[in-house]
Amino acid sequence: MGRTPSLRLTIAQVNPTVGDIDGNVDRIISVWTKYDADTDLIVFPELTVTGYMPEDLLLNNGFIAHIETAIATLVQTSVMMKSAILIGAPARDRTELFNAAYLIEAGKILSITHKVELPNYGVFDEKRYFTSGTRPEPVDFRDHTLGIMICEDMWFPNVADYLSAKSADLFIVLNGSPYEPHKQSIRIQHARARVMQAGIPLLYTNQVGGQDDLVYDGASFALNADGDIILQCEEFIEEFQTFSFANGRAVIHPQHPETESLYQAAMLGLRDYMRKTGQSKIIIGMSGGIDSALSAAIAADAIGADNVSCVMMPSAFTSKESIDDAVDCATKIGTKFDTIAIIGMVDQFMTDLPDISGLAHENLQARLRGVILMTLSNQHGAMVLTTGNKSEMACGYATLYGDMCGGYNVLKDLYKTQVYNLAHWRNGAKPVDALGSDGEIISRSIITKAPTAELRPNQKDQDSLPPYDELDSILMGLIEEDLSPEQMAARGHNPEMVAKVSRLLKLSEYKRRQSAPGAKLSSRAFTRERRYPIVNGYVS
Amino acid sequence: MGRTPSLRLTIAQVNPTVGDIDGNVDRIISVWTKYDADTDLIVFPELTVTGYMPEDLLLNNGFIAHIETAIATLVQTSVMMKSAILIGAPARDRTELFNAAYLIEAGKILSITHKVELPNYGVFDEKRYFTSGTRPEPVDFRDHTLGIMICEDMWFPNVADYLSAKSADLFIVLNGSPYEPHKQSIRIQHARARVMQAGIPLLYTNQVGGQDDLVYDGASFALNADGDIILQCEEFIEEFQTFSFANGRAVIHPQHPETESLYQAAMLGLRDYMRKTGQSKIIIGMSGGIDSALSAAIAADAIGADNVSCVMMPSAFTSKESIDDAVDCATKIGTKFDTIAIIGMVDQFMTDLPDISGLAHENLQARLRGVILMTLSNQHGAMVLTTGNKSEMACGYATLYGDMCGGYNVLKDLYKTQVYNLAHWRNGAKPVDALGSDGEIISRSIITKAPTAELRPNQKDQDSLPPYDELDSILMGLIEEDLSPEQMAARGHNPEMVAKVSRLLKLSEYKRRQSAPGAKLSSRAFTRERRYPIVNGYVS
Repeated sequence: MGRTPSLRLTIAQVNPTVGDIDGNVDRIISVWTKYDADTDLIVFPELTVTGYMPEDLLLNNGFIAHIETAIATLVQTSVMMKSAILIGAPARDRTELFNAAYLIEAGKILSITHKVELPNYGVFDEKRYFTSGTRPEPVDFRDHTLGIMICEDMWFPNVADYLSAKSADLFIVLNGSPYEPHKQSIRIQHARARVMQAGIPLLYTNQVGGQDDLVYDGASFALNADGDIILQCEEFIEEFQTFSFANGRAVIHPQHPETESLYQAAMLGLRDYMRKTGQSKIIIGMSGGIDSALSAAIAADAIGADNVSCVMMPSAFTSKESIDDAVDCATKIGTKFDTIAIIGMVDQFMTDLPDISGLAHENLQARLRGVILMTLSNQHGAMVLTTGNKSEMACGYATLYGDMCGGYNVLKDLYKTQVYNLAHWRNGAKPVDALGSDGEIISRSIITKAPTAELRPNQKDQDSLPPYDELDSILMGLIEEDLSPEQMAARGHNPEMVAKVSRLLKLSEYKRRQSAPGAKLSSRAFTRERRYPIVNGYVS
Repeated sequence: MGRTPSLRLTIAQVNPTVGDIDGNVDRIISVWTKYDADTDLIVFPELTVTGYMPEDLLLNNGFIAHIETAIATLVQTSVMMKSAILIGAPARDRTELFNAAYLIEAGKILSITHKVELPNYGVFDEKRYFTSGTRPEPVDFRDHTLGIMICEDMWFPNVADYLSAKSADLFIVLNGSPYEPHKQSIRIQHARARVMQAGIPLLYTNQVGGQDDLVYDGASFALNADGDIILQCEEFIEEFQTFSFANGRAVIHPQHPETESLYQAAMLGLRDYMRKTGQSKIIIGMSGGIDSALSAAIAADAIGADNVSCVMMPSAFTSKESIDDAVDCATKIGTKFDTIAIIGMVDQFMTDLPDISGLAHENLQARLRGVILMTLSNQHGAMVLTTGNKSEMACGYATLYGDMCGGYNVLKDLYKTQVYNLAHWRNGAKPVDALGSDGEIISRSIITKAPTAELRPNQKDQDSLPPYDELDSILMGLIEEDLSPEQMAARGHNPEMVAKVSRLLKLSEYKRRQSAPGAKLSSRAFTRERRYPIVNGYVS
């Protein structure tokens, strides 16, 4: 059991932008300058210099050289600072690249620690880029001995046991750990196991922000040598806390309930996608249904209702109820609202293209709406937000180049039943940093009526699909748990229904391959985390 | 130096379908039955039972159980056979999965060899699925000792040196090695290095066929103990050869020149995508330009001109020359041809959507054409073939949900200058198994005129882009070689032009993320092999 470290430590839960090395370094230096006087060491997350995850940028020589210049800048900066920084960045050693943590103080690199355990599953591909480090030695720093780990290193005893055997008196873990439900409790569980084994405290710093299909939730924390949480940062926002384990306590922000976290993750994913790609305006095709209503609510919360335009595009099959619901909902959310009927366009197509009927006619309507939205997008410089939820995307219940048009999909990884939950929740609450209105913003009738695509008379989703609670239960088994038909049957699902849903899931892979990006919000997100072939002869 | 093996060996260069375990096993048994009487051992490629590469199907319990049933079937089959088989399939060992080779004879599994070197770069993600095997022992078989390797194992000395030290008298290598230009000479180079070191002969069997974004070219071969090629299978078709190293020679099919190989790879990729997804008809938007003309030619060669429909969709900006060229070319290729003018549709949109101009108006035309093609696709059950070449896809010179609509893109990984080369070549030659017409099928004027998108008056591609020979040279440096701006400048490229192209390449990633699949034909194919983030702040 080591003595309690007296170091002043600063957790820097920052939101870097992937690839923007210069911008990230500016941000690092500004944080360093601000907290320098009152701390010994500022701890940034994994790969802060590049953002997590730069993917194949790491294969580019110029990019690696740029990282090395950035590190040199930080070393130079450290000459003027009283404190040190511990920061994640790739480190090149001859022909090999490591996922590393640099400890920089007073004009020197005190240590470079290489990540040992490289995740190459789920959303991770680190073995594509990095060489696994040998077990890192602890590092002496200001009368203490730091046991530095990078993310996955903390998930196994190997590195921690070695560091504590070599007299580390404090674990510091740098992370780029994406959000998924219940992830924080798993992180804490692993952290606590390392602490209990070694009898020394642990500081865990995580990135925050959205990056393509991933959202990092932050929630950085510290455990004392007894395994108690003595510090926890707020989820989904940047936060900085300076503390010392010797003082015992810091600020502990509670975790949010799952529905609230899902909403915040979706909102942050969209907000950062917009900001980091330099876009400020969103356009949404509003149908009067729950998906576009919730998408509009999240968009208004993410970038402000003034920056969101909803467009209703009624056809001959659109009910008055849908139009009323769309107008009411857009009004409550506070977005702009336009109506552009597609009736003339459909007629013109039916004149020019004889003999169009059935599914072709249904898809035609969805695709003409897609063309309208993309035309408005090009004309006004607004990104189209597409609104297909995970249940629909799983079954291919969406029109490619129709309602699937869009730069981003905020519901991509939310099952239909979760969409309802989030709409309910948002009517009674609002996240701290949401820019939208208070109160009931999603019309009650939108939540209560039966879902319909309105592409033919009296159409209801459940004409083609099982009821959503049953459908989602089957989909979660097939997707999140990768269960076989036998395992599904053992859970009491109807084998024929499972076979039907499994078949739809397989046959719609080609659509998902061309779908918009959207934040991972589940344990198995399409595209990034569930990598299925299109040509797939497997009949389960 | 071992004695020359007297075994009768059969190379089975087959074309399995990913996921279709039952179908693949049927095919294996039918080959086995046919060649059984005249051989000792039939050697199939890597992962033949599942096809290469099943991706996340390998994470599914039901799928792994199905593989084990298939192996049991093969073992049972072997009771009735005189010969043995050596076949690639995943092998589960408690919780671990190996990429393995099964040697099956007379009702028994004689050996299971695990792959040691797991590629996790380029198009490969094997460390996502498999555990690396320990160095495999050689296997005694019919008075010989087989040194069995799987694909990447042959690319390094480690496994081969061990096997030859343990008295293997013959190397047998099972492969799932995708096509790219010059790949075969690299394979032979590695194979020869192993042979020269060990002084024993080598048999190399490769898969053939298309799978999503990859094409396997076959070209299986054998080297005698001196490193001479004594057998080489034809590229891009299934082939079976029975031979013995003791007899000295077998059939050596020469490799095709690069342009011919590219054409064959493109054709096979498309043909197999159609066949393996159960589709038989293709529809192409024909513009009178080179891309749609070459796409139509390859489509006709792949599935027969009778199964291909070309649709010309003229606007107010379409020249008479374009219409004439399209009609002439479709006639020569022998496809169906229709004309559907978009003028009325554009007018209707301009009436319903006021104030549309510039890029929005250009894209509108491309998108209405996309809607027409997709509507015809839905109505007639034909897959739309999209036609954007790699140069265009690299620069974002394509309309998302417009000319990018389609289930597959046969030109996806061909630069514009390669498109011209292939068109030239096809006018003077025809691949052996092509179903299309002989002679000049791509109108000369299509090859000689300046390329244009015809989305505004007098538009030429080179108003927006550098000349294609210069553009392609820059793109190849940036993409295939991942060069930095400094390296590009050192090659004599104009730095401003490089910066402009590099910027276009970065900013169009979001379009490529939603693009259709298409065969890898280069050393760095978009999407599958060049994995860049969309949110990317890197300015090179």
